[in-house]
Amino acid sequence: MRTRPLKVALLGCGVVGSEVARIMTTHAADLAARIGAPVELAGVAVRRPSKVREGIPQELVTTDATALVKRGDIDVVVEVIGGIEPARSLITTAFEHGASVVSANKALLAQDGAALHAAAGQHGKDLYYEAAVAGAIPLIRPLRESLAGDKVNRVLGIVNGTTNFILDKMDSTGAGYQEALDEATALGYAEADPTADVEGFDAAAKAAILAGIAFHTRVRLDDVYREGMTEVTASDFASAKNMGCTIKLLAICERAEDGRSVTARVHPAMIPLTHPLASVRGAYNAVFVESDASGQLMFYGPGAGGAPTASAVLGDLVAVCRNRLSGTTGPGESAYAALTVSGMGEVVTRYHISLDVADKPGVLAQVATVFAEHGVSIDTVRQQGKDGEASLVVVTHRASDAALGGTVEALRKLDTVRGVASIMRVEGE
Amino acid sequence: MRTRPLKVALLGCGVVGSEVARIMTTHAADLAARIGAPVELAGVAVRRPSKVREGIPQELVTTDATALVKRGDIDVVVEVIGGIEPARSLITTAFEHGASVVSANKALLAQDGAALHAAAGQHGKDLYYEAAVAGAIPLIRPLRESLAGDKVNRVLGIVNGTTNFILDKMDSTGAGYQEALDEATALGYAEADPTADVEGFDAAAKAAILAGIAFHTRVRLDDVYREGMTEVTASDFASAKNMGCTIKLLAICERAEDGRSVTARVHPAMIPLTHPLASVRGAYNAVFVESDASGQLMFYGPGAGGAPTASAVLGDLVAVCRNRLSGTTGPGESAYAALTVSGMGEVVTRYHISLDVADKPGVLAQVATVFAEHGVSIDTVRQQGKDGEASLVVVTHRASDAALGGTVEALRKLDTVRGVASIMRVEGE
Repeated sequence: MRTRPLKVALLGCGVVGSEVARIMTTHAADLAARIGAPVELAGVAVRRPSKVREGIPQELVTTDATALVKRGDIDVVVEVIGGIEPARSLITTAFEHGASVVSANKALLAQDGAALHAAAGQHGKDLYYEAAVAGAIPLIRPLRESLAGDKVNRVLGIVNGTTNFILDKMDSTGAGYQEALDEATALGYAEADPTADVEGFDAAAKAAILAGIAFHTRVRLDDVYREGMTEVTASDFASAKNMGCTIKLLAICERAEDGRSVTARVHPAMIPLTHPLASVRGAYNAVFVESDASGQLMFYGPGAGGAPTASAVLGDLVAVCRNRLSGTTGPGESAYAALTVSGMGEVVTRYHISLDVADKPGVLAQVATVFAEHGVSIDTVRQQGKDGEASLVVVTHRASDAALGGTVEALRKLDTVRGVASIMRVEGE
Repeated sequence: MRTRPLKVALLGCGVVGSEVARIMTTHAADLAARIGAPVELAGVAVRRPSKVREGIPQELVTTDATALVKRGDIDVVVEVIGGIEPARSLITTAFEHGASVVSANKALLAQDGAALHAAAGQHGKDLYYEAAVAGAIPLIRPLRESLAGDKVNRVLGIVNGTTNFILDKMDSTGAGYQEALDEATALGYAEADPTADVEGFDAAAKAAILAGIAFHTRVRLDDVYREGMTEVTASDFASAKNMGCTIKLLAICERAEDGRSVTARVHPAMIPLTHPLASVRGAYNAVFVESDASGQLMFYGPGAGGAPTASAVLGDLVAVCRNRLSGTTGPGESAYAALTVSGMGEVVTRYHISLDVADKPGVLAQVATVFAEHGVSIDTVRQQGKDGEASLVVVTHRASDAALGGTVEALRKLDTVRGVASIMRVEGE
């Protein structure tokens, strides 16, 4: 084994960074054996240098992250700051000064992955980011390496623990959205401002990253259709139960049937209780992958948290250090397929639509005619009425989102339709 | 991209081999893009050369596997023959003649993994075998690379599809073992001679491989305790249901609490219905991994079959070809931890014991005394009696297998105990 240590610069020492530093110390002998050389924490860039950080010698702490990544003797920069800047500049500077990079930064990778990969490639360095998607769950490496000989057709994932906790709570207790969110906040599963989670921004960034890797093509954050889960109601869960389903916020990346285009989207959806994703409870994450040869695979585990995320960071750190010792780099960006990324209108799926209608003869015929005119085939209809008010629940066969949109627009114009109570996609069948 | 192709020799062209050849042809452009060079099927060694194999030019077919691996221009040998010989000699000869090897051979890897890794290392070649454990499910790469910065404490897996199909059938229909086996045979899930599956030999080979990789130590096939599932009865399933459990044939690799020794075992066990492994249906496989930092992960998918196994083989093929192009090798055997592998007596778990006893006063006191004398603490006891016959179901707290064995031996000597109807371990809590 080489005795001269590989030098690691840690950018950020919050929940994840402090766990990375802790494990680097407590597991030093194991890491050295697995890498083939010791690794040494050479510097830790923080915002508040005066804070006492157990196990981290004060002389390693600096507020000057730029100077740290410019030192020239750093082998690997671990970026766990998050956000776009200064993370982006620091990573680019790290490549320029000879370091490889391990990052947990989903927002940055989703927005600027292509440019960062290009910078890494230009300098012959590694850019690894297993921790950016679904925390500890090995996902990027399996997709990029284990399935490198296969053709992935669909990725269907629960990639946000906060929203899964909330939806699971609504499902199991009958609670409304606000009540479940309040509990998630009280337990620390939701942040004070939960927007990034509940509006699907976090999941959309992960969907962009997953789609790019799964389909070997570039998928920008703007390409991802996004719909949050704040409007999911207890009544939607009751409807789901009637169908033998539950509701999950899903990130869905799909190859179109012609194979030439892909879509990526995040929205709440009904999935059958028999689907493996339906039983993913609490704040856990799970990603279901469908491929030509391997069939259906699922990867399950904690999607967030300091130690789980640090586990993913350290797995990458070992790989990058090993590459460095053998003078090579791992697989970089693979975007050769250059597929078209289609918009939401092209997505084909099933729909569960609840309509408030007048309780009089002929309504169903009118509604059915509108579906037929838009080429949306109806699977089942359930009619419930009392006191002149009625509801109509329609479940469709597979249809494009554009066709469904046209149908709903026309339904709203019918005199007998008082309102469209909810529209939910049905996935995983 | 390099235009000169990498040459692949395929040893075996059965269910898996023919799928490997098919995908190499149909996905040639994708494989080339992902590897950075085209791959070419340079020869296929078979036993019956006269059999027509769609898509494989007759001039590539040979019965002389040794001559094929000795050609000297082969970059990667894909071994999907199975069994110990001639696979072992062919792999060794391949390394000697400059090729790297991708194998799906669990029996060989479990028995001779250390020697084969040594041969690969000596010649600076790769030995990859993702397909040897749990078919298409990425498991070896995640354990070896994604979790390289973590400390794995336990691997708990359903790694044999045949037995899971049988047990799932018994659970869902109340069928007995023989009836469920007959159905598995009729549907092609069980072989004419099901011994390797139902007696746990197949799972034991996978447990040896998984334990070695998870704990960075050598675990020989002989180190794995093995108990088949042919004696599981409908009555055991009824007992399991009473406990909120089901029964699975599990491969369990555990680190002892002192961290210095490990155990590996295969046996039927009760697991709670709330455990993610409990809902693994039919012939699917799933492996649950518990680590210090990442917590609980699960990997799920098809554990066998031509196309899924070929997917895993091709993922390895891409990795090995990439290594070859960059003049490096991937992670080889990692056995630096050199831990003691303890026997079954050291295993600590819970037990569900059914006793046939005389229905008279004092029996429970006698039985409880025997447990206490052997240091096995009782969690619950349930007593059922009629017509002078009675049964006693005891569920214990955690105890060593040795202590439980001593307890059962003493119980058998009691006049009031007519027989020990069943002993089953309780896992996953």
